[in-house]
Amino acid sequence: MRDFSHNHRWLSINTATVRKQRGIEQPLTNIIEDCARHGIRAISPWRDQVAAAGLATVSKLIRTHGLALSGYCRGGMFTATDGAGLKAAHDDNLRAVDEACELHATCLVLVVGGLPGALAGHAAHKDIALSRSQVNDGIAALLDYAKAHEMPLAIEPLHPMYAFERACINTLEQALDVCDALNPSGGSALGVAVDVYHTAWDPKLEAQIKRAGKDRLLAFHVCDWLTPTTDLLNDRGMMGDGVIDIPRIRGWMESAGFAGYSEVEIFSSNNWWQKGSSEVLDTCIARHKTSV
Amino acid sequence: MRDFSHNHRWLSINTATVRKQRGIEQPLTNIIEDCARHGIRAISPWRDQVAAAGLATVSKLIRTHGLALSGYCRGGMFTATDGAGLKAAHDDNLRAVDEACELHATCLVLVVGGLPGALAGHAAHKDIALSRSQVNDGIAALLDYAKAHEMPLAIEPLHPMYAFERACINTLEQALDVCDALNPSGGSALGVAVDVYHTAWDPKLEAQIKRAGKDRLLAFHVCDWLTPTTDLLNDRGMMGDGVIDIPRIRGWMESAGFAGYSEVEIFSSNNWWQKGSSEVLDTCIARHKTSV
Repeated sequence: MRDFSHNHRWLSINTATVRKQRGIEQPLTNIIEDCARHGIRAISPWRDQVAAAGLATVSKLIRTHGLALSGYCRGGMFTATDGAGLKAAHDDNLRAVDEACELHATCLVLVVGGLPGALAGHAAHKDIALSRSQVNDGIAALLDYAKAHEMPLAIEPLHPMYAFERACINTLEQALDVCDALNPSGGSALGVAVDVYHTAWDPKLEAQIKRAGKDRLLAFHVCDWLTPTTDLLNDRGMMGDGVIDIPRIRGWMESAGFAGYSEVEIFSSNNWWQKGSSEVLDTCIARHKTSV
Repeated sequence: MRDFSHNHRWLSINTATVRKQRGIEQPLTNIIEDCARHGIRAISPWRDQVAAAGLATVSKLIRTHGLALSGYCRGGMFTATDGAGLKAAHDDNLRAVDEACELHATCLVLVVGGLPGALAGHAAHKDIALSRSQVNDGIAALLDYAKAHEMPLAIEPLHPMYAFERACINTLEQALDVCDALNPSGGSALGVAVDVYHTAWDPKLEAQIKRAGKDRLLAFHVCDWLTPTTDLLNDRGMMGDGVIDIPRIRGWMESAGFAGYSEVEIFSSNNWWQKGSSEVLDTCIARHKTSV
């Protein structure tokens, strides 16, 4: 297992972690400068942040600082109520692949979607099996394009508490079943993003990480599970502040062949998003050394 | 599949659903009278409520009204930091079996416990595998006593969002693996309680209900998953108000041989616990007919 205690060579910052500073939304260009100033070598930006700053501007800034992208957040949201909605999702995902290529991302992360409308509080139906079927079809259709553009797709299983609203792929096993079905020959064209927040509860996690293997382990996201957790979405903890044994999980990842970045992805409306970026990034660097 | 549309013969009320009325904690004796007045045939009371009212008093009142117990809530919480803690949990669980017998409960429901101390915000460690091992040992030790007293034990897999604080058994598959390991000959001595709130997200739910079969399907709990859910514990919805396809899951239960009660278990600090018991019970009866 790699020794992270001496430097932060393998730390990546998911830009959601500092998208709000002292409660205020920040432009991605500022976030990139903040990261570069802290000697951070990799980031994972969100599409809406890239769109707001301009793809060309972001692409240029990333190259200026020599930053790698441990992933691009995010494609997916494949589910819809009709053919037009499914096509719109597909078209949008093609653009996400193009952007990920332009930014030289390691992979395009897929948050696959739940029941259509549920995120807005108005689910169109209750048939989660139908959503799962649409997700399967959506990934299959996107995979051809992604393969042609050599952009790996990383299915991110989301915690089961998001099954209905955000992503109906909820375990690593389920994600790998999709990989087996749609890309049976293996390889890295279709793999997974393992986020400890979403998966640490899973009694099958170690076995499924082993099953995934080096080729399909495309990303590793870290933060911590707080007890108590006061908000279902925006109360993630800094590594070391919660109950997840992150080094153990990273050990499983590395035993399976993963040698990429540990990407910090924290949504925290009442804590980290209320602080300045230097405090947040300094803490990420410190905890990367002690608690990842 | 049984037709529930004409009456509420198979409705049971988990007494947590009306434990607070207009925001005020109610004595179990009142709750029992409320249920009896509404023609409800079965309840599932909580141990703390029984203790507060007195076991003998509750037992007598239940018999007076001819109420069945679809379950007794709850044994479990097997995890601890030392031998004394493990023994205290075991001893307490023996008493829970005794009480369940006195009340002629169908089963004793087990909420197995998470990381010791985590529920109070001070987890003693981060080793969920250790907790799972303690749970396994705790159920094994309790099973002998429960068998001798002919009280079935129903492992309730809790939603993965409760893995660290309340119960480290989080899928039906995991619960059934424990059943297979500890009671390989099958039968109803060790089985499961299937709660739609905890399990509806699970892509393997249908298959695992089938695997469980009639003997091990000891209880069926219903409520609904609201979108958005505003509290991790106390924001459960009334059947029909959320996104769970409850009739589909009941169909799977009945196809596997289950023919017991549909037990309504709702924790709802901002909604149902703020109403009077008649409104809540009338709604449970109505929704039992239309949405279960």
